[in-house]
Amino acid sequence: MALKLHGLPMSTCTTRAMVCLHEKAVDFELVPVNLFGGEHKQPSFLAKNPFGKIPVLEDGDVTLFESRAITSYVAEKFKETGTDLIRHNNLKEAALVKVWIEVESQTFNPAISPIILEFFVAPKLGNTPDQAIIDANLEKLGKVLDVYESKLSSTKYLAGDFFSLADLNHFPYTHYFMQSPWASVVNDRPHVKAWWEDISSRPAFKKVAEGMTFG
Amino acid sequence: MALKLHGLPMSTCTTRAMVCLHEKAVDFELVPVNLFGGEHKQPSFLAKNPFGKIPVLEDGDVTLFESRAITSYVAEKFKETGTDLIRHNNLKEAALVKVWIEVESQTFNPAISPIILEFFVAPKLGNTPDQAIIDANLEKLGKVLDVYESKLSSTKYLAGDFFSLADLNHFPYTHYFMQSPWASVVNDRPHVKAWWEDISSRPAFKKVAEGMTFG
Ligand SMILES: N[C@@H](CCC(=O)N[C@@H](CS)C(=O)NCC(=O)O)C(=O)O
Ligand SMILES: N[C@@H](CCC(=O)N[C@@H](CS)C(=O)NCC(=O)O)C(=O)O
Repeated sequence: MALKLHGLPMSTCTTRAMVCLHEKAVDFELVPVNLFGGEHKQPSFLAKNPFGKIPVLEDGDVTLFESRAITSYVAEKFKETGTDLIRHNNLKEAALVKVWIEVESQTFNPAISPIILEFFVAPKLGNTPDQAIIDANLEKLGKVLDVYESKLSSTKYLAGDFFSLADLNHFPYTHYFMQSPWASVVNDRPHVKAWWEDISSRPAFKKVAEGMTFG
Repeated sequence: MALKLHGLPMSTCTTRAMVCLHEKAVDFELVPVNLFGGEHKQPSFLAKNPFGKIPVLEDGDVTLFESRAITSYVAEKFKETGTDLIRHNNLKEAALVKVWIEVESQTFNPAISPIILEFFVAPKLGNTPDQAIIDANLEKLGKVLDVYESKLSSTKYLAGDFFSLADLNHFPYTHYFMQSPWASVVNDRPHVKAWWEDISSRPAFKKVAEGMTFG
């Protein structure tokens, strides 16, 4: 039975899971959730994720939520298929993958996600973007990317000279960010730019990017 | 050779790693970092963690940072010693551990950590706590703990009827929070209260809690 991913093709967290499933060549069915109709706050959805958020992955009798838990589960369960995302045969490389997965989650995401929310999402909800929030987070993001620039000048990808889940988890917010007026924050850092061009041209990324519009 | 943990016994992120090492019965040496003297921004420390933050774990030639990457590495590398924190023999339970680890990181931590920073840390730095930040985050935290209350009324711990890394990662901020004026946010929710009393009375937790003072 194919896995079921409940979510939407424009949602950042859903697409993080989708890219991972494609990299692992795992069959799945995307089950759309009517966020605008509040389907995710109904009892049947809350039974899958009590926080009422997408995405949710169902794999037989296992139900998971939280996009990074989903990508890590998929990368581990299907470690023998598709791209090796967790370096499961090398303790040291696997440790560095864990480190940079956490950097995305704890440091990169808190800086980039408010920018995307203000610039792309607020207007859809009828609100005016708060430029002070954007500016403060652009500054934070720049500092994070200074460290990335230095790291990526010594290894091709974040955890080493191999593409991994740590790179993958950056996909959705960076994709939208590159369509904002501030893409230069990436492009002005040559190693970060080259890294983004490399990973965003992977077939799995391109396939998912096609469906990502705030239209 | 014993593992080396660079950090401080009062630091939330350091203690997250320490509790895990104790649960796994792994020998380690705590190497103090002089934060007040700026040691963590010196080249020799930045070579271990380019973000200049504690903790850092050195295990032979593997150097890790980010406390949750450290706990997950330790729980996996030493899976056969001490408490099983990741349910490595049960795919479904292991998946739920991953989910609730992410809930702590993405939902619980962003609500509780600003409260601790404002109430305990700001005064040490000569600043006045911002009550508006505290209030907004107390409200967020209450909503998160409503979900925990319901979950913990059906299973003894967050990921199921077993203690895991998901529970453990909550330790440092909850420990400080219980010494704030708002401990009732936990105590008014009977299942959350019972869960906290249970996990905070574990020997590993008690040992580390002794050293946790903002003195
Ligand atoms: N940390 C969660 C965040 C999930 C999340 O915020 N999902 C959004 C869509 S990208 C959502 O469901 N929003 C609807 C809502 O919060 O009501 C993850 O990574 O999965
Ligand atoms: N997400 C990191 C956060 C690390 C962190 O913020 N550490 C604090 C101490 S708890 C620190 O080093 N602060 C000093 C500074 O930022 O200059 C982790 O979980 O390890």
